[in-house]
Amino acid sequence: MANIDFIEGIGLLAAALTTYSFLPQVYKTWYTKDVSAFSLTTFTFFFIGIVCWLIYGIYKESLSMILANAITMVSSLIILILILKYRKP
Amino acid sequence: MANIDFIEGIGLLAAALTTYSFLPQVYKTWYTKDVSAFSLTTFTFFFIGIVCWLIYGIYKESLSMILANAITMVSSLIILILILKYRKP
Repeated sequence: MANIDFIEGIGLLAAALTTYSFLPQVYKTWYTKDVSAFSLTTFTFFFIGIVCWLIYGIYKESLSMILANAITMVSSLIILILILKYRKP
Repeated sequence: MANIDFIEGIGLLAAALTTYSFLPQVYKTWYTKDVSAFSLTTFTFFFIGIVCWLIYGIYKESLSMILANAITMVSSLIILILILKYRKP
């Protein structure tokens, strides 16, 4: 039981870190509109990948994966939209 | 069995997408040295989070999670080092 709690603790810490880590990037990009350094390919495939992780987490019934990937999906979608909106043609 | 294969297929697709999606960003940042748009906070906490996901995946004995997070850990570490090296003080 204690071991399961430890593992789920690591999972929730991982979920919290990878999820909330994107918020400063969303905030910075939202205000600076500076998207020149971003790879559009990276954020497109990353977003699709996160959607797949979310589906996988739902099947695996992993609360950590579902919570993390649902929020990361929204954050990465916002960054992707900002890249598409502000990139130089 | 077919259902398990489908789930693991989604997991491996997720792993492939979120893992390899970072490579174009590593390539672009490596050559342009343009890191002005990146949030250092984001990539620092993202890297630590990926290390935690890797530990979680090892405990969960999820091959998809282990493979994905091991490679993403390397990619995000390279981007983090490039940000620290080329950011304006």
